[in-house]
Amino acid sequence: MCNDMTMKSLSAAELAQLIEELSTAYERLQGNNLKLDLTRGKPDAQQLALSDALDGVLAGDYMASDGTDVRNYGGLLGLPETRALGAELMDTPADAIIAGGNSSLQLMFITLELALHQGLGNLIPWAEAESPTILCPVPGYDRHFTVCEELGLAMRCVDMTETGPDMAQVARAVADPNVVGIWNVPKYSNPTGVTYSAETVEQMAQLPASAAADNFLVLWDNAYAVHDFAEPHDELASIHSAAAAAGTSDHIVQFASTSKITFAGAGVAFVASGEHGNAAIVKRLSTMTVGPDKVNQLRHARFLGGRLREHMAKHAELLAPKFACVEEKLSQELADLGIASWTKPNGGYFVSLDVMPGLARKIIAMAAGAGVTLTPAGATFPYGDDPRDRNIRIAPTYAPLADVATSLDILTLCVRLASARTLLEQMQ
Amino acid sequence: MCNDMTMKSLSAAELAQLIEELSTAYERLQGNNLKLDLTRGKPDAQQLALSDALDGVLAGDYMASDGTDVRNYGGLLGLPETRALGAELMDTPADAIIAGGNSSLQLMFITLELALHQGLGNLIPWAEAESPTILCPVPGYDRHFTVCEELGLAMRCVDMTETGPDMAQVARAVADPNVVGIWNVPKYSNPTGVTYSAETVEQMAQLPASAAADNFLVLWDNAYAVHDFAEPHDELASIHSAAAAAGTSDHIVQFASTSKITFAGAGVAFVASGEHGNAAIVKRLSTMTVGPDKVNQLRHARFLGGRLREHMAKHAELLAPKFACVEEKLSQELADLGIASWTKPNGGYFVSLDVMPGLARKIIAMAAGAGVTLTPAGATFPYGDDPRDRNIRIAPTYAPLADVATSLDILTLCVRLASARTLLEQMQ
Repeated sequence: MCNDMTMKSLSAAELAQLIEELSTAYERLQGNNLKLDLTRGKPDAQQLALSDALDGVLAGDYMASDGTDVRNYGGLLGLPETRALGAELMDTPADAIIAGGNSSLQLMFITLELALHQGLGNLIPWAEAESPTILCPVPGYDRHFTVCEELGLAMRCVDMTETGPDMAQVARAVADPNVVGIWNVPKYSNPTGVTYSAETVEQMAQLPASAAADNFLVLWDNAYAVHDFAEPHDELASIHSAAAAAGTSDHIVQFASTSKITFAGAGVAFVASGEHGNAAIVKRLSTMTVGPDKVNQLRHARFLGGRLREHMAKHAELLAPKFACVEEKLSQELADLGIASWTKPNGGYFVSLDVMPGLARKIIAMAAGAGVTLTPAGATFPYGDDPRDRNIRIAPTYAPLADVATSLDILTLCVRLASARTLLEQMQ
Repeated sequence: MCNDMTMKSLSAAELAQLIEELSTAYERLQGNNLKLDLTRGKPDAQQLALSDALDGVLAGDYMASDGTDVRNYGGLLGLPETRALGAELMDTPADAIIAGGNSSLQLMFITLELALHQGLGNLIPWAEAESPTILCPVPGYDRHFTVCEELGLAMRCVDMTETGPDMAQVARAVADPNVVGIWNVPKYSNPTGVTYSAETVEQMAQLPASAAADNFLVLWDNAYAVHDFAEPHDELASIHSAAAAAGTSDHIVQFASTSKITFAGAGVAFVASGEHGNAAIVKRLSTMTVGPDKVNQLRHARFLGGRLREHMAKHAELLAPKFACVEEKLSQELADLGIASWTKPNGGYFVSLDVMPGLARKIIAMAAGAGVTLTPAGATFPYGDDPRDRNIRIAPTYAPLADVATSLDILTLCVRLASARTLLEQMQ
């Protein structure tokens, strides 16, 4: 976070002159007919190509290590070698992990729907609460919010800090028996890039024991578990171990996937809870499907087995320059102005930029006017509503490096121009 | 169906002698320590091997016909060429079809859950009925029943006839506003092998217009659309066309998959309703997943495109001898005895055997005692309860031909022995 010397120290005349200069620059940009896109947390084509050998990797051998013919039905828990891959991702024993289909989001939806209407395992259904409510650390991941909205679950925001959600806010919130769960992206959080501290992980594992709702669930979406691009990379403590120690295993549901490791949306997803939670999920899966795509599970185990870190290092090589570019541009153009702060993650897919309150929507519209599409303002908050209208999610992975650079030039220009205009208005 | 001259014409003495002979034969079998399995509607290894070229079929070219990079996120409707494959399966235009993940059962579950809690498209939620009830043609497919049970939907049985469900029973049932849907496996129905007549398809398409529930859904699981193994094969009329003519498109939801075409559980599933129904399903899918596995969709389109019928002919070559064996054994051992009737399908995965009322459970236990595992008695009825305890599902696809023959020898022996014992008891 950087906000030492500030634009606020400028006089009205200096601001007016700055606005004129920046406006001229902005108008010039509008003539360039650019079409740049920093909206999506997607891997780019070079990253995807790292896994091109996946199709064909089986070389005609469709037998899993336990003798399963992966071409046929069955096997709701997933293949042993694929669960072992999940163990590497989730820092959790393979036998506590279910390897599923192509979408961890789907496993989340299924888990929440089950928890809401039937109760997860031994827990009573959330639907029995007057107004079942999920805590949402913000800024956060829009698809988590959408799942809640679709299922009619209320959402309550808690602030993210540099060590994870503000646990004092969380502790107060869970005293309400309507509060039945909390979303988490514990490593390289979307969009802040924050990794939960060991203390936060520990507190999160203990949370179900202190929550008023005795069917409280900690939803642990470890989407970026091995997605480091800077060293030293962040280390995340094992929620599995912490929960085992706290006796809360059935109240923790972990998710992960290979979507940003191999092919996005064509990988393998994982879910892991305690004994009863897993049994409930498997029972539900058994009514929904005859089994996951084990052929693709075997492909992933063969392709990544023993070389996951090596593979991720190749992603890091491709991603590091883009994130370095974002950091360089933001520092160069916005440091010390007191009009913005941003995160500098060691991994994940996003940089979170906070501008002056009330300006995010305006800045995103201005950037669009100059040809740069950003994630819609508010997307990182439940119902798309950022109450302070200040968060902007920067997703630099998909665009080519040159586009990232140009986009950041434009974005930072828009931030400066909008901020200067606002500061001048505030003086008048 | 075969039941002309009968075992019932035998005298008590003749029955007693027959029982003694059959018992001796049965006891001899018990010493053989056989372990044969006719339970599962699964393809066998030779069938699966027909699709071994799937892994690697992309040869490094991951671009779909519309320029989509299938390795990345997105595309909830599925790829154009995969939807075209769905069109071939479902006799429905490609633009009315959504190509999804690996499991049509999952698409069914999602559709029913949505219809129950939110309403499908413009329709009111089933949950608003006092006791939402689904009609289940019986004998039928156990996994359909399990979906209903899991979602808390009541089930009401209607009888299957040789042209589909008994439409007079259906017409009476849908006068009850609690009756909100009907399951169908319209071609080579599980387990009867019945294909709905054109008239039944027509009536089914019109059914939502006459049902008391105005949110009535016809659930059309076309699991065996191209799974012919005898000629002339059955032809199924297009429910899509019939529904369009009847103005009921949003009340019909079709399902299909490639699970018994390529790899079981590692193929592509399809769903198709009307405009509003499809929009509702896509909206729900958009909250559950960032998209289906398009890599596998492209594999299937490349592998099967233009040669689906040719590929299915190879399955037919492998399946025909097994079904011929079942028919031969049943005819040879049970014809003209008046103690059993069975179906002789032209495709699909099952033969449905009806024995004397009250004997199915007993016969299945006897067969197990001699080393032949059959689908549990009652499995073809909701809640596993066959009220007349007479239906046995024979699934000959997975076992080797020699095992099918041996299993049928044992099964028919058990049918004769159990029937003779019962007839003798009835005399005494």
